[in-house]
Amino acid sequence: MQLFYNSQLDTESTSFTLDREESRHVFKVLRKKIGDKINLTDGKGNLYHGTINHITSNRCDLDIAFAEAYPPLPYQLHIAIAPTKMNDRMEWFLEKATEMGITRITPILCKHSERQKINLDRFNRIIISAMKQSLQFHKPKLDELTTFEDFINSDLSGSKFIAHCEDGDKNHLINMISKGNSATVLIGPEGDFTPLEIELALNNNFKPVSLGATRLRTETAGVYTAATLNIINN
Amino acid sequence: MQLFYNSQLDTESTSFTLDREESRHVFKVLRKKIGDKINLTDGKGNLYHGTINHITSNRCDLDIAFAEAYPPLPYQLHIAIAPTKMNDRMEWFLEKATEMGITRITPILCKHSERQKINLDRFNRIIISAMKQSLQFHKPKLDELTTFEDFINSDLSGSKFIAHCEDGDKNHLINMISKGNSATVLIGPEGDFTPLEIELALNNNFKPVSLGATRLRTETAGVYTAATLNIINN
Repeated sequence: MQLFYNSQLDTESTSFTLDREESRHVFKVLRKKIGDKINLTDGKGNLYHGTINHITSNRCDLDIAFAEAYPPLPYQLHIAIAPTKMNDRMEWFLEKATEMGITRITPILCKHSERQKINLDRFNRIIISAMKQSLQFHKPKLDELTTFEDFINSDLSGSKFIAHCEDGDKNHLINMISKGNSATVLIGPEGDFTPLEIELALNNNFKPVSLGATRLRTETAGVYTAATLNIINN
Repeated sequence: MQLFYNSQLDTESTSFTLDREESRHVFKVLRKKIGDKINLTDGKGNLYHGTINHITSNRCDLDIAFAEAYPPLPYQLHIAIAPTKMNDRMEWFLEKATEMGITRITPILCKHSERQKINLDRFNRIIISAMKQSLQFHKPKLDELTTFEDFINSDLSGSKFIAHCEDGDKNHLINMISKGNSATVLIGPEGDFTPLEIELALNNNFKPVSLGATRLRTETAGVYTAATLNIINN
């Protein structure tokens, strides 16, 4: 099964035209013809069946029938992570966390962040691609780059954790979360959170957690967290 | 802390010369001087303290003192995985699985494998780099590319699992493994294992396991498995 995505689809849609790039893919790579079916999602939990009624190398028109609504998870799996200096490392975190079913990602700007700017459109395209690839119907929410202080003071649902690398009494994340409950996990930049950031987070009811015995890179810590949240909810 | 690696070190070593590239790194990037200390490992569990007694831009001589032996894990965490068509995806699996403390990796050649050749030297360099980065003293064992049939008939310690994508009665891997026990997990190529390969594995006492509800790419399945094995042993 291959899945297409467009946020403009809604359950009232009866027809739809794929964009130029997708039309070319359907025509040249998938070699679809008039009457062939394709599956689409709006990233909001809805699956649509499309039937091709016109196709050329740069335009594919579809008759659309709403097929099924997949309810959202009744909890949030939320990772707030400092974008890495090397952009490709952050991008693979986005891809893998999406494949593993994370529901929300907030890029955060910390004191030690070497990367201070992100390309949100590009990040969204990577997330959409991973959502389609892993056959999911809900696009994870991607927030704008948010300062650490703004983030920890924002309204967050469920339990809140900070995975810092400083010594101290920390339980493993897997022992601190439970199935079906919302959780937010903070992952720091290459140089870790500062002692002041850690103190601020603890004062805002974030609990310190460990992500295992080895030292993980930022993006590895992010993917490991996504796997942990996935495992507990399976 | 920064860690250097050389497989030729042993507990009798009293002096050592870093290679050209490492010497340049120590001189130019770390800006070390005579008398400064660096840490080294042989990848077999031993940590050495080196003291610089001569340094130029392309040669760094060290006095070596054996410092500490870290015992190996008393169990094997072993992933056998079909190398991906895109080499960078396999390479990041190697990096992340090493960071997460896997002990052995076997690249396997399956019926649907699109990649039939690998560069073992390059794979080893990636594993060594990840071992140093994550401050571990044991280099994961990397086997040569092995056919699926040879692999499933080989002598493997502990429980054996196959993470195929076919429907059927499968428990999640996390429920099938237990702390401190050896486990081997088979991860298939982009087109999955064939029904015959699955049958052969089951006949050789591999148990089918699930890696969660979403469809994971080969390399994501590998990293997810590494995270699962890490979590259960924490």
